[in-house]
Amino acid sequence: MIRAGIVGGTGYTGVELLRLLHGHNQVQLSIVTSRTEAGRPVSDLFPSLRGRVDLAYSEPSTDALSRCDVVFFATPNATAMDAVPALLDARVRVVDLSADFRLRDAELFKTWYGVAHRCPGLLAEAVYGLPEVNRERIRGARLVANPGCYPTAVQLGFLPLLEAGLVDGTRLIADAKSGVSGAGRKAAAATAFCEAGDNFKAYGLSGHRHQPEIVQELEAVTGEKVELTFVPHLVPMIRGIHVTLYAELVKEPDELQQVFEARYAREPFVDVMPAGSHPNTASVRGANTLRLACHRPGDGKTVVVLAVEDNLVKGASGQAIQNMNIMFGLDEGEGLSDAAVCP
Amino acid sequence: MIRAGIVGGTGYTGVELLRLLHGHNQVQLSIVTSRTEAGRPVSDLFPSLRGRVDLAYSEPSTDALSRCDVVFFATPNATAMDAVPALLDARVRVVDLSADFRLRDAELFKTWYGVAHRCPGLLAEAVYGLPEVNRERIRGARLVANPGCYPTAVQLGFLPLLEAGLVDGTRLIADAKSGVSGAGRKAAAATAFCEAGDNFKAYGLSGHRHQPEIVQELEAVTGEKVELTFVPHLVPMIRGIHVTLYAELVKEPDELQQVFEARYAREPFVDVMPAGSHPNTASVRGANTLRLACHRPGDGKTVVVLAVEDNLVKGASGQAIQNMNIMFGLDEGEGLSDAAVCP
Amino acid sequence: MIRAGIVGGTGYTGVELLRLLHGHNQVQLSIVTSRTEAGRPVSDLFPSLRGRVDLAYSEPSTDALSRCDVVFFATPNATAMDAVPALLDARVRVVDLSADFRLRDAELFKTWYGVAHRCPGLLAEAVYGLPEVNRERIRGARLVANPGCYPTAVQLGFLPLLEAGLVDGTRLIADAKSGVSGAGRKAAAATAFCEAGDNFKAYGLSGHRHQPEIVQELEAVTGEKVELTFVPHLVPMIRGIHVTLYAELVKEPDELQQVFEARYAREPFVDVMPAGSHPNTASVRGANTLRLACHRPGDGKTVVVLAVEDNLVKGASGQAIQNMNIMFGLDEGEGLSDAAVCP
Amino acid sequence: MIRAGIVGGTGYTGVELLRLLHGHNQVQLSIVTSRTEAGRPVSDLFPSLRGRVDLAYSEPSTDALSRCDVVFFATPNATAMDAVPALLDARVRVVDLSADFRLRDAELFKTWYGVAHRCPGLLAEAVYGLPEVNRERIRGARLVANPGCYPTAVQLGFLPLLEAGLVDGTRLIADAKSGVSGAGRKAAAATAFCEAGDNFKAYGLSGHRHQPEIVQELEAVTGEKVELTFVPHLVPMIRGIHVTLYAELVKEPDELQQVFEARYAREPFVDVMPAGSHPNTASVRGANTLRLACHRPGDGKTVVVLAVEDNLVKGASGQAIQNMNIMFGLDEGEGLSDAAVCP
Repeated sequence: MIRAGIVGGTGYTGVELLRLLHGHNQVQLSIVTSRTEAGRPVSDLFPSLRGRVDLAYSEPSTDALSRCDVVFFATPNATAMDAVPALLDARVRVVDLSADFRLRDAELFKTWYGVAHRCPGLLAEAVYGLPEVNRERIRGARLVANPGCYPTAVQLGFLPLLEAGLVDGTRLIADAKSGVSGAGRKAAAATAFCEAGDNFKAYGLSGHRHQPEIVQELEAVTGEKVELTFVPHLVPMIRGIHVTLYAELVKEPDELQQVFEARYAREPFVDVMPAGSHPNTASVRGANTLRLACHRPGDGKTVVVLAVEDNLVKGASGQAIQNMNIMFGLDEGEGLSDAAVCP
Repeated sequence: MIRAGIVGGTGYTGVELLRLLHGHNQVQLSIVTSRTEAGRPVSDLFPSLRGRVDLAYSEPSTDALSRCDVVFFATPNATAMDAVPALLDARVRVVDLSADFRLRDAELFKTWYGVAHRCPGLLAEAVYGLPEVNRERIRGARLVANPGCYPTAVQLGFLPLLEAGLVDGTRLIADAKSGVSGAGRKAAAATAFCEAGDNFKAYGLSGHRHQPEIVQELEAVTGEKVELTFVPHLVPMIRGIHVTLYAELVKEPDELQQVFEARYAREPFVDVMPAGSHPNTASVRGANTLRLACHRPGDGKTVVVLAVEDNLVKGASGQAIQNMNIMFGLDEGEGLSDAAVCP
Repeated sequence: MIRAGIVGGTGYTGVELLRLLHGHNQVQLSIVTSRTEAGRPVSDLFPSLRGRVDLAYSEPSTDALSRCDVVFFATPNATAMDAVPALLDARVRVVDLSADFRLRDAELFKTWYGVAHRCPGLLAEAVYGLPEVNRERIRGARLVANPGCYPTAVQLGFLPLLEAGLVDGTRLIADAKSGVSGAGRKAAAATAFCEAGDNFKAYGLSGHRHQPEIVQELEAVTGEKVELTFVPHLVPMIRGIHVTLYAELVKEPDELQQVFEARYAREPFVDVMPAGSHPNTASVRGANTLRLACHRPGDGKTVVVLAVEDNLVKGASGQAIQNMNIMFGLDEGEGLSDAAVCP
Repeated sequence: MIRAGIVGGTGYTGVELLRLLHGHNQVQLSIVTSRTEAGRPVSDLFPSLRGRVDLAYSEPSTDALSRCDVVFFATPNATAMDAVPALLDARVRVVDLSADFRLRDAELFKTWYGVAHRCPGLLAEAVYGLPEVNRERIRGARLVANPGCYPTAVQLGFLPLLEAGLVDGTRLIADAKSGVSGAGRKAAAATAFCEAGDNFKAYGLSGHRHQPEIVQELEAVTGEKVELTFVPHLVPMIRGIHVTLYAELVKEPDELQQVFEARYAREPFVDVMPAGSHPNTASVRGANTLRLACHRPGDGKTVVVLAVEDNLVKGASGQAIQNMNIMFGLDEGEGLSDAAVCP
């Protein structure tokens, strides 16, 4: 059994890790920390875990965490970077669900996250945890930077087109829509039921932190400059991300459907739907699947890719466990085989 | 492996059986029937099951179903009663999720369901599948009548009080609230998003079919006349039932909390929350748990019990699998151990 | 034109007053105050009022407010009682939407609201602003205590039965359900979209402040002791209250429907639906109507009344304007004639 | 008083016309027809109109409708074209909310709507009822083709950019999101609460009828070829449309904000928000306002316009009344001045 710890287990990605690890046969959940809730049973804060998770929150302690085989950070940004070096020294492997190790450039990190990086030396080592791109590197990684929710969907949607050189990488548009849980568990006016419910709006037009992350990774794949217009929106639903991706063809493809099917033929968690399909977010609710479909309206020059995922699963905690499975040589789908809860 | 069949696999209880049986390690799903969708892959109708359930719907056939060890009926009312006798003759065990075998009195059935019962001889044999009351009889049953969604919650909430003789059985009130999936998958004006969304209403004040079912079963327990005012309401949520139960004390109880905790101490799927709690439906979303709390406002004569369940799981398909587990001597929790998907 | 001021215009009852007064032909909105938002245009905080309300928030000032004919308090509890005496001295009439003047007993106020009342001398003078009961007294009132949202619906539902002496006043049950806006605009974990959405729960079983208010007013009508079990619930909708009221008949009524129709025949804002109806909250969204229906399930001893209102309109700001109309001798329906926004 | 009739008053645009005309001081609603509901009081079908609209539905009759000054068609497509000629002959003016007279090319109509047009001779005369473009022609029109919900928002968002020659008209993208009421009141699986709720999806990628309508009207303005990728999505909310429009700059604009403000400075129902704003659909719920904001992310070559409207008001029935006001020389805002119902 792999001993796992969670740092910061009171947010939505934390509780989702708890839910999923409860169903994982080869993991023993050893520690879940929270500064604010130390001493309180997890199931007191989350009654959905009553009878399932018997742990209580504890104060974060490097000593205690060092006895884990793997530690997940489900902390606010700029938290993991203080604790990760000591854990790596203690030979603990780390999956960080925050943004601390996603950007490779410390300057870029400071620009977007507003603080200087406090262990920039690890940025080069950290492996960006998108298994569909970096599976081999994840296998040997000490430190995995788990991708953001939007970046997972946007990258997996654009990748087949860019890898095949079919579209203009300087004219990419990602119109992204997220359920409200993407904003986290902290009470805020914008995510109150009476504000976010029965309502729809865009946000972050002045710049969203997931944009440079996506560009960095797509450029790493294509080796060329990528320009991306990224517009996120808030949807009155709890879980789920839907991205609608627009790209302009630069050469006539043989068969778009085939491009996507071939790219993801052996991927256990990417589901290419039949041509003409419209994936919906409910079809992945609670599951680690990214489901997509490719369209070419009116046989014109614009390709439209529709992709959905559960932002808390394939967009966060499920992908984190997928990464852990790869790191420890387990079956990649262990603990992640549940079907979506639908309706 | 137990070979299982589902008759009527296109409704919400049918797809929920498919989801849950997919995660059950000792069941092989052999057949799922549908007259209207015969030949169509299940995952075509329910994309949430893509990559999880590979079956296609088939025409219902007694021959084919007879090769199953157990058959679940997830059919409209007045359908199972035509097919069950032949299956029982073929030594197939049956769990009927419809109402066909819940009422023991054929006349009462006709009054409430509008058609004469077509195999009344089985009504006496059928076991009402509420494990918390009838576990031993379920173990040996050939035919289990799976309870309705409201009746499960109402009975489990009132039972400890009635069994202990604490309340007046002729003054019971059940104010029940259900998510919209309780109305089934058929398109109807009342359950359209624009009608049921951002809205709340009562329905069925002129008489709801679950009322006589509850009264029959509570009277069987108490041996005395039960009078119940039952008022269901439609809540703008997808899954979940919340019942608020009112009963009048006829004698001073020692400690209400203890009455409930003792009654359900060994029940794997009934969770008595601490005194003062308010269970919420999200805490059981997708899980087979009934969660309840008991209150006595102002230390007055009225006891209030709050109970929640997922109407499609403990209120239907989960309970059906729990019954199957009991019938086949499996661990009662097999395939039902997932934590709720929350938020 | 009546010059109106609003103290505390940043909450949901405040913005609803602004919306409704914008459509009132005989009111000029002169002042809207907010300590936290002073100087900011109202329509900056509430874009729905862009082009409709041109005021900016100002610091509350007794001098400025004294130039109004009427001042509405849409403040948190225990705020109005500090400002009202000076305004009354300045011959300004006041409608208080908070709880400060609803309870007549200063001790009871302290028990439920946790602070000593700071102008108890006005409690006897304040008129409880339920026009269907106190219309004549409201006409001459200097200070109207606008009822709470639940109390309006519960009282209007029970009143015909109690006034006619038909039911046992010591066995009343009000199972009440409210949309989330009833909890106000302040960000809080319990009213976040991801917590309140797709979810249902009861709350306040240990005691809700609207319970003593209802009992006080019902006892004032009947002159006898009233015992009420009051259980509020939170519904995943934005606006709307639905109360399901249970009472036990003490004598055989002639015709329940007629009792309700006669009682409210001349009430402009109470709509008695035909026998057998199930009012829904969407049918009063944005309108000042309370809509109800009366049932007697199975012709038994229990009467069930279903009543709906928009908690922000008839349950708060609309009723406040109705009271103002009465106080100033205007047509009672002025500014309140809009049909509900449905769907 | 203008005598108005509504043909087809049982759908959502019909009931919205009833709601808005109830509040219009210069219109007397004379007739509302429905073949299926003839004889039934309107308020029986729509309890929200109880006490507000006293009419009953009647069979459609040219004679009766001919006594109206104006008739609104809120009928399914391919219905109005059979009835309109006779009404025009009788000097009745017509506002058609269906698609029958929106496309000027009868062949194009047949391609998209699947039936031959039955009065193609009127296509040239019909005025496309977008007041912000065609106000003068609407004034004298006998027959106004009221725009579709998506086309109103998409055109008003792109127009200032295209009229100013700032963007490439062959690279337009409209990512559109609609509340479920846009699909109409007919019960359908896709718009059931349990399917559309807590869910998000695109639809119509193979071609949506509003695409050619938009292209026709934009080309009429620019006089050049327009190519538009139009992708609609279904949002789990009742009312509201949000369009996110992408266009590529072909020359450096002086000041985008100024372009929009100047274009709509005198438009009563188009609200240009301050730079940096994100309009939300709730801010126009029930109101006839289109609210928009213009962005240029990262000062790049892509302009993003965000626009919201209530699909049933500015996107349908409100705009129809705005057109009627213009046709009859009334104040354009008569009956349309209500503020949005928010929250």
